[in-house]
Amino acid sequence: MQLTSLTDILSLIPDLPRADEAARAAAARRQDSLTKPPGSLGRLEDLALFMAGWRGTARPQIDRAQALVFAGNHGICAQGVNPYPQEVTAQMVANFDRGGAAINQLCRVANADLRVIALDLERPTADFTAGAAMTEGETLDALNCGAAAVDSEADVLVLGEMGIGNSTVAAALAAALFGGDPADWVGPGTGSDTAGIARKITVIEAGLARHRGLDAMATLAAFGGREQAAICGAVLAARAAQIPVILDGFICTAAAAVLYVVDPQLLDHCLVGHVSAEPGHRKLLAALGKSPVLAFDMRLGEGSGAVLALGIVRAALACHNGMATFGEAGVSSA
Amino acid sequence: MQLTSLTDILSLIPDLPRADEAARAAAARRQDSLTKPPGSLGRLEDLALFMAGWRGTARPQIDRAQALVFAGNHGICAQGVNPYPQEVTAQMVANFDRGGAAINQLCRVANADLRVIALDLERPTADFTAGAAMTEGETLDALNCGAAAVDSEADVLVLGEMGIGNSTVAAALAAALFGGDPADWVGPGTGSDTAGIARKITVIEAGLARHRGLDAMATLAAFGGREQAAICGAVLAARAAQIPVILDGFICTAAAAVLYVVDPQLLDHCLVGHVSAEPGHRKLLAALGKSPVLAFDMRLGEGSGAVLALGIVRAALACHNGMATFGEAGVSSA
Repeated sequence: MQLTSLTDILSLIPDLPRADEAARAAAARRQDSLTKPPGSLGRLEDLALFMAGWRGTARPQIDRAQALVFAGNHGICAQGVNPYPQEVTAQMVANFDRGGAAINQLCRVANADLRVIALDLERPTADFTAGAAMTEGETLDALNCGAAAVDSEADVLVLGEMGIGNSTVAAALAAALFGGDPADWVGPGTGSDTAGIARKITVIEAGLARHRGLDAMATLAAFGGREQAAICGAVLAARAAQIPVILDGFICTAAAAVLYVVDPQLLDHCLVGHVSAEPGHRKLLAALGKSPVLAFDMRLGEGSGAVLALGIVRAALACHNGMATFGEAGVSSA
Repeated sequence: MQLTSLTDILSLIPDLPRADEAARAAAARRQDSLTKPPGSLGRLEDLALFMAGWRGTARPQIDRAQALVFAGNHGICAQGVNPYPQEVTAQMVANFDRGGAAINQLCRVANADLRVIALDLERPTADFTAGAAMTEGETLDALNCGAAAVDSEADVLVLGEMGIGNSTVAAALAAALFGGDPADWVGPGTGSDTAGIARKITVIEAGLARHRGLDAMATLAAFGGREQAAICGAVLAARAAQIPVILDGFICTAAAAVLYVVDPQLLDHCLVGHVSAEPGHRKLLAALGKSPVLAFDMRLGEGSGAVLALGIVRAALACHNGMATFGEAGVSSA
């Protein structure tokens, strides 16, 4: 998948695969034959059926799980929206590369192949209160980079991000895409205090005043950042390859929400791994009609909540594929 | 641990270990040094601290996880409280032994050693509407069996149960221990319809009328069953060995609630792995002051929700033990 303009996405939509309803129905019949009261595995059954539909088989396997973490830097940091210095983005990428971050440990536990992609960290996007964060060219480069990073042999894709200042970008995107009071979308992020939250609201209001009446893809370019665009590219490339996606928290979901506003069905193959402690995330999930897999009050990013949810999906498929049927086990049904 | 009377438990309490607050505090200091905003791993941090306190070390490991599933049969089934025939208990035990049940798949994913203990399945407890479900001797045998089953080398213990009719026993125990309208404790269990639920309420009311003014341990004997008593024994033996416990759903939690009524601190080393779809479970967790790890609308039993939560505890400890500190990683803090 190679986009040459931001409107290319619209022409892609008719050719994107949809869930295989026959495979999903076959998986549902299998669930009802397994040695348990019907429906008693609750959400695990839903997850198995979701995977069956998107992988196009009644007994989907996860042989290969890919985790992609995109990192970017943001010109809006010049407005003092984050208590951490911007160099932390590159320092954390180095920490990912050395295996010292939360996402490294969680990928090991969940058996996911982690790939971290730093997007021009030395060249932050522009301050969105002064103009568009990214040119169309920069936006396309990041979209295509995200799309190219997807392993077409993966059975599931976990997405995450890292970028000092990007909870402000996420809140700005959410407010621009779905409206409402900017204060409802803003939270402490990695650790802003009350004054920091007030600054975030002020810069978002300034950004919204500057960038009005844009379509979803132009909104992405207006507020940034590169990691958000890369997430959109990866979601699209995964869809084209029938790879289900697990989104992470507020920032990752806000990025993918751009695609939802383009066309809601663009996120049909996406789960949301967890609802984060960032208060805007619940509101965003309601807007997208998504129910998170987990709720642990996490607010780290990096894909950490999404890869935890991968462990649950693996457990769901282990039951789905490994359990005996009533007939096989000689167990009487009700 | 070998109990010779039901009142022995009271004399054990003063000698039971408590959480090691120094180890917990050391674990909390480590959490704050790791390369993430403080608190950003949410519930995962709480789980790591819980494990540190009960294992008595700042960096607890799970080298060995044991899952114990106790199975029993119940005389109350004569009152038609369950749509499945009682033989299903033994059939499911055979399914566990052959590796065909949900718990087998989930233990494989979570790397837990599963042991299934069938408790006199051919000899159901007595119908509690006609008298005590178990004699004191039968209750002690089951308690001691549960205690003896605990692997003292385990780092964590997952508990589960199987027993046709035992959601009625659980609701009766909960109503007897905590009061309230029996209807508030009764749910569909493995699949009762409205008429089945009404029958469950009727038999519980009859049982409550017959067994009044009993202490907690006598209440356990009055309503049964063997798997509930075995769960109590295992919880106590785990406590004596400083092994934290993960309880499963409504039936497992109702069994452990007997100990809570003996003395609330007896469950301090217990997590509840999930809140089940059985409506009484939320009410019971509120009575015990416990917050479940997961909420997937599961209602299978077998320890299925508890062993899923074990995977989350493993992930929490992987972060706790494996992440780099700010100092190690050269990452600037806020």
